[in-house]
Amino acid sequence: MKLTILGSSASTPKVNKYTTSQLLKIRNHHILIDCGEGIQMQLRKLKINFSKISHIFISHLHGDHYFGLIGLISTFRLLGRDSDLNIYGPEGLREVINMQLKLSCSWLTYKVIFHTLKSKSQKIVLNNQDFTVKTIPLNHRIYTNGFLFEEKFYERNLNKSKIKEYKLKVDDIKKIKNGGDFFLKDGKKIENSFFLRAPKKSKRYAFCSDTAYYLDIIELISSVDCLYHESTFLDSHSDLAKKTKHSTASDAAKIASAANVGKLILGHFSNRYKNQEKFLLEAKIHFKNVELAIEGTEFDI
Amino acid sequence: MKLTILGSSASTPKVNKYTTSQLLKIRNHHILIDCGEGIQMQLRKLKINFSKISHIFISHLHGDHYFGLIGLISTFRLLGRDSDLNIYGPEGLREVINMQLKLSCSWLTYKVIFHTLKSKSQKIVLNNQDFTVKTIPLNHRIYTNGFLFEEKFYERNLNKSKIKEYKLKVDDIKKIKNGGDFFLKDGKKIENSFFLRAPKKSKRYAFCSDTAYYLDIIELISSVDCLYHESTFLDSHSDLAKKTKHSTASDAAKIASAANVGKLILGHFSNRYKNQEKFLLEAKIHFKNVELAIEGTEFDI
Repeated sequence: MKLTILGSSASTPKVNKYTTSQLLKIRNHHILIDCGEGIQMQLRKLKINFSKISHIFISHLHGDHYFGLIGLISTFRLLGRDSDLNIYGPEGLREVINMQLKLSCSWLTYKVIFHTLKSKSQKIVLNNQDFTVKTIPLNHRIYTNGFLFEEKFYERNLNKSKIKEYKLKVDDIKKIKNGGDFFLKDGKKIENSFFLRAPKKSKRYAFCSDTAYYLDIIELISSVDCLYHESTFLDSHSDLAKKTKHSTASDAAKIASAANVGKLILGHFSNRYKNQEKFLLEAKIHFKNVELAIEGTEFDI
Repeated sequence: MKLTILGSSASTPKVNKYTTSQLLKIRNHHILIDCGEGIQMQLRKLKINFSKISHIFISHLHGDHYFGLIGLISTFRLLGRDSDLNIYGPEGLREVINMQLKLSCSWLTYKVIFHTLKSKSQKIVLNNQDFTVKTIPLNHRIYTNGFLFEEKFYERNLNKSKIKEYKLKVDDIKKIKNGGDFFLKDGKKIENSFFLRAPKKSKRYAFCSDTAYYLDIIELISSVDCLYHESTFLDSHSDLAKKTKHSTASDAAKIASAANVGKLILGHFSNRYKNQEKFLLEAKIHFKNVELAIEGTEFDI
């Protein structure tokens, strides 16, 4: 998995500051998570081939998480896209997109498949051969989901040196590939897995924005390799965090620690703060492996 | 009047290329004409105090002319705006904005007054003490208006040297201010206007985007000081211009010449052209005083 931060500001875009959006690559799949205003410009700036985006996940319908979606959908049309686009988001998203397409008399050259999310408990919303996506119900002012992306196990590769050592023939190799065991001339069985490489570890990424400090998610994101958790405020504004159902950097780090995640990425920074270094300092008191979601940064998960 | 070009690309925004938007200042009034995606970022980049914008005119509901409006409205709320905002645009605009506000449960701190345009003939849509705005019905794929901004006559100032020369008293001056004439001791009348400075010329600006080559507008924009006319294409793509109901640079210049305007500004350039110099060349065959709408350029009208 490779994660690219496209935007990480809260509430409004500014000069070279975009609101929440991330591009997640899982094998050959390009997935957009949230889509703030102007994100198509940011995708071009970062030279990302955005026609490859096949799935878009929208956490909630505050504008800083989806106002760029209608523009992206329109640009896909102008670029002559013909492959399906799957969009996952709350009730109302389909209507607002369709209303705008209808008003502009712009008929799409491709199919948009809306997957409306409305459950308040965790659901599997996508399950294909390479990965699954589950919702992470969050606690915000309006209906909001985080998303858990889980890569599926890789097929194990053949261990060529073992195959050479035991002089396996073409038929034997076929059998191993199909999961069969190997038998020596004396009838002794050698297990299938002996001829395969160690399995690659499959990765899990949890995206949680926007939410109040919310203990219910700990179980859902337990031991993920990487957690993005919003941190709109610093401790000095914890009263505002509570009032607006957002989190502080400390809140995010406490969740990361309790869920025993591999890495924590902080983002959704309030525009009131000139630089973000204090977010790191306050988070590191509770959890060590923490980084900032800065526009253009790539994370290998 | 002072006009600032915020965006002039057709169809989609790109890196540092915004779609149609202009800021027009008439005396103390700040007016936004069209509002492409990300225009609030461009307003910040150009250090324009956008909380002063009191009127927004939307020509039509193709996304490259209004996808930035909902973001701007939301940002006004976050900045604590309390003054009324007047929005002029086609049917459907009010609904799409209100639907998005409702979905985000974002209640505005100020009043948005929608003025729905639906007439196919010219209408006066705004008339205050400083200026009037009339629609310019255009010929595009969907219902589209251009806008004609007409400054009202300035009040004429007193000509102090004449007042001194004739030794006018306080009461005489009051009379002059109220439009009265002055009488010499021998009863001879001196006309009111003799004591006033020459009137300042009031300016007129016509904004025409998007439209096919459309002779009907010539009468409506006759002799304006400045005409912005879209020129999506060059002559080499005049077939595309016809098909999509857009104009070429030559079309725009022919209209400017026939309407005897002071200056022509070209914009809404198709992204297919790497530079815009050819637009100037092709236009100048038909009309000399022509300039390009480049982002950030200011025009004194």
